[in-house]
Amino acid sequence: MKIITIASLKGGVGKTTIAAFLGQAIRKRKKILVCDIDPNNNLTDFFLRDVDIKELQSRNIYHGLTGRKELSDCIFKTGFDIDCVPATPELAMVGSELMNDFGSVIRFESDLKSLKYDLILIDTPPSLTYELQASIYVSDLILCPISYNRWTVHGYQLLENQVLKQKKAGKKIKLLGVPSMVTAKKSEALSDVDEIPLTKTHILKSEALENAIILGTALKESSNAWIQFDSLAKEVI
Amino acid sequence: MKIITIASLKGGVGKTTIAAFLGQAIRKRKKILVCDIDPNNNLTDFFLRDVDIKELQSRNIYHGLTGRKELSDCIFKTGFDIDCVPATPELAMVGSELMNDFGSVIRFESDLKSLKYDLILIDTPPSLTYELQASIYVSDLILCPISYNRWTVHGYQLLENQVLKQKKAGKKIKLLGVPSMVTAKKSEALSDVDEIPLTKTHILKSEALENAIILGTALKESSNAWIQFDSLAKEVI
Repeated sequence: MKIITIASLKGGVGKTTIAAFLGQAIRKRKKILVCDIDPNNNLTDFFLRDVDIKELQSRNIYHGLTGRKELSDCIFKTGFDIDCVPATPELAMVGSELMNDFGSVIRFESDLKSLKYDLILIDTPPSLTYELQASIYVSDLILCPISYNRWTVHGYQLLENQVLKQKKAGKKIKLLGVPSMVTAKKSEALSDVDEIPLTKTHILKSEALENAIILGTALKESSNAWIQFDSLAKEVI
Repeated sequence: MKIITIASLKGGVGKTTIAAFLGQAIRKRKKILVCDIDPNNNLTDFFLRDVDIKELQSRNIYHGLTGRKELSDCIFKTGFDIDCVPATPELAMVGSELMNDFGSVIRFESDLKSLKYDLILIDTPPSLTYELQASIYVSDLILCPISYNRWTVHGYQLLENQVLKQKKAGKKIKLLGVPSMVTAKKSEALSDVDEIPLTKTHILKSEALENAIILGTALKESSNAWIQFDSLAKEVI
């Protein structure tokens, strides 16, 4: 099993968009679980928007992390032939609860690895919270959406520092930038940022993409956006 | 002196937009300092986009919070006749550094109150970090941008719980929702959410507003958006 985390210390760079559509492209090839570990729960809103809030509150990633429920009991079926562990805003409390419970992240990793999926894709909050640190710890690959902004390299390096800490602890984690939500022109400029190893696939800004994420719908498989996610899927699985 | 914090546990609800333009509207009446305490530093990018990254890294809110520099030495002049304490992504580390330094928030409050301004306006990250908690602690008034989303009431209540904790510690903090980035129709619907005390002023979604925040420019004082912020300023100062 492979665990891929989408992470960035900048907000608004397309983390949830990538998680939603990369997840769908991977599903064409692998049995995949998406896991929302962001208290802002936008991925949950995408995949499970018809599920009642009370139902989401009764079993979600918070219960899995704190051991109140088995992680496997927190899995929902979605309309996309993808399973999903949702998050609710209460997840924001998990850090103060588990901060000094050093075993909690190790339990999270073994719980994830005991699930019957080929690949788990995790969406994370844009800040150095417990949730993000735990996701880094359990990952084989971290994809960091990179947009063309003067803080880009800087934000990437901060994330890289966190990955290096886990590497020192013996973890094998690969970190890759994904040029994301950029125009074709800026996408070209990003290829010159040689401090950051980038995926070959760039995700270009597009209205079809923005609409699909807002409406919670799939992309047309003939669309440019879909072709990009399909190519990204091939690159990372 | 009054300290107003813009806070929400949902991202993308217009916190930075409100901080930027409410700040400008308040400046017409009061001597104001804006303080960016979000590692995502979008308010810094709005007010100080021409300042070199190295210069911003040498003195910012992180140095003020950790006591490495006097807070007063971390103030920059902006082109908007408003002073600004910037943030950089390094701020994300401050929580792990100060988490158990219980005096740090009290020092932050007295440092802020020793500054020569009528009003300080603080922009915060959308997660329950040290930065947000510290901002709540020092505030007289917290404005929570509310957009029309099924998690709205829920996110507000989580914030309210944090405010209640500080109230139990004897702090007098007022919490108000600001209907934000909503269409006129949804703005009306929000008036019915009776769990949340709302400002009379609603900030409506508008392209002029989105462009101004992206471009880092002021609003035309004849524009609807400006009139809304001016009205909000009158309501909250």
